[in-house]
Amino acid sequence: MKATLDCIPCCLRQAVDTARLISSRPEDQEKIIRAVLQWLAGLEMAGLDLPVPPKLTQHLHRLIREVGGMADPYQAMKEYENEVALQLLPELRAQISTAADPLLMALRLAIAGNVIDAGVFGHIDAAQVQQAVRQALTEPFVGDVEDFRRAVSEAHHILYLADNAGEIVLDRLLIEQLSLSSPTQPTRVTVAVRGRPIINDATIADAVAAGIDQVAEVIDNGSDAPGTLLADCSATFRAVFEAADLVIAKGQGNFESLSDEPGNILFLLKAKCPVVANYLGVAPGTQVLTR
Amino acid sequence: MKATLDCIPCCLRQAVDTARLISSRPEDQEKIIRAVLQWLAGLEMAGLDLPVPPKLTQHLHRLIREVGGMADPYQAMKEYENEVALQLLPELRAQISTAADPLLMALRLAIAGNVIDAGVFGHIDAAQVQQAVRQALTEPFVGDVEDFRRAVSEAHHILYLADNAGEIVLDRLLIEQLSLSSPTQPTRVTVAVRGRPIINDATIADAVAAGIDQVAEVIDNGSDAPGTLLADCSATFRAVFEAADLVIAKGQGNFESLSDEPGNILFLLKAKCPVVANYLGVAPGTQVLTR
Repeated sequence: MKATLDCIPCCLRQAVDTARLISSRPEDQEKIIRAVLQWLAGLEMAGLDLPVPPKLTQHLHRLIREVGGMADPYQAMKEYENEVALQLLPELRAQISTAADPLLMALRLAIAGNVIDAGVFGHIDAAQVQQAVRQALTEPFVGDVEDFRRAVSEAHHILYLADNAGEIVLDRLLIEQLSLSSPTQPTRVTVAVRGRPIINDATIADAVAAGIDQVAEVIDNGSDAPGTLLADCSATFRAVFEAADLVIAKGQGNFESLSDEPGNILFLLKAKCPVVANYLGVAPGTQVLTR
Repeated sequence: MKATLDCIPCCLRQAVDTARLISSRPEDQEKIIRAVLQWLAGLEMAGLDLPVPPKLTQHLHRLIREVGGMADPYQAMKEYENEVALQLLPELRAQISTAADPLLMALRLAIAGNVIDAGVFGHIDAAQVQQAVRQALTEPFVGDVEDFRRAVSEAHHILYLADNAGEIVLDRLLIEQLSLSSPTQPTRVTVAVRGRPIINDATIADAVAAGIDQVAEVIDNGSDAPGTLLADCSATFRAVFEAADLVIAKGQGNFESLSDEPGNILFLLKAKCPVVANYLGVAPGTQVLTR
């Protein structure tokens, strides 16, 4: 899906948030915001034909990191997100093992985990995250669970595209269920994370912190876009993407970048922003399982 | 209060909303957004010492109107807002006349009316506005009602600074109560609106549509800022402002522009944006009566 005009103020809001993470000095923040404004003022947008949003934000955050002189402004936040989510893991695992339908419960928890995002996670503790996840489990959920179940049971090789740090800990529970899902043979699952730091998106370090490497093969996609821009990903990643008979893509960034790609792709996301919600035809905030 | 960095993405969001009201043609929208981005990229913000927000948005909307070639992009919206609020007037008036404390009920309705704003009002009907106002009456309200009551009963000349179209219809009910509030003599109330069209802020036409001219003297402030920038207001308005022994100022824009001014000023507003809420030390969305 293409970015709309609404994505431009949102880029600027992300720039303000990130500038504050990089430095508390007004002159540093001003330098970053001015560079972003100058870039946006010259942006190619004839006919409002904008690129996919992760292409815009890839450039945005490269610029912010360069002008701000910091390679990974979200590092501390990602570590905190993982830590808090790991505290919940035993309780959530128990919730799955006692559920009537463990795969469905793991699916719901993985989508609920998408509530854990940079914007809302900065200053809350484990109890509040637990509350947010519990709340997410009670909220409307749009999607065909039987289609998901069938797709998973038929797949021989699943590529799971992770989204944020913290959230990836909840993904682990679904990945464990996916490995058990075929009655005849263990399904092979590969989990892909971003190739380099971008916002609070999960990288290899976060996958290892979440223990994903203990339950699946972990690769990175070679790209620093907050999504999956295939042309920007490594040849190795693209080969795995092509070879997988099912791709499960978490979060808005993966949806925005892959919604127009062919293939057997199931998207799991919370439609947090109005642009994505509008594209999907759901109310903002809806949790969605879609092809 | 000064604008913060957060106000810059918000300016851009307002520009996108207004560009869409002005034209559905991508090339027109692009022209407006690019002009706004170029202005923002050159904005004086050394040390992040920004002006008060209505000073920023006054310039923003002048630029949008000029580049977009439209004198009042919000005219149709304002007319609709007034129309819908007028449909509620008889019911709300009955609510006041049966209330145990009519002044308090009128005060709560006037603050609740501040929920009627450009962003939320575009596509909802009278029933939904009624629901929003009813909801607002049940929500937390921070402020010293007895201080308000005393200030009103002691005042000889009240200057009431209106905020938005639609909302001004609910203001009328409070203005009627203010005129009755002195036991010995009718208090004189002057209602001031903006001097020229700016966003969906009330102008003379809206005051007349709401019938304010039947219950009080109506003046305009001579300015096209979405607030009350005294230096930008007419000499006539400033004389009335100086002469009033109580000023009642509705909404965020009047608060942002007058919060650092001396004088006997009571602010009634819903703290809709995080910057104002943070300045006031309340949760975003809180309805506030403050000095």
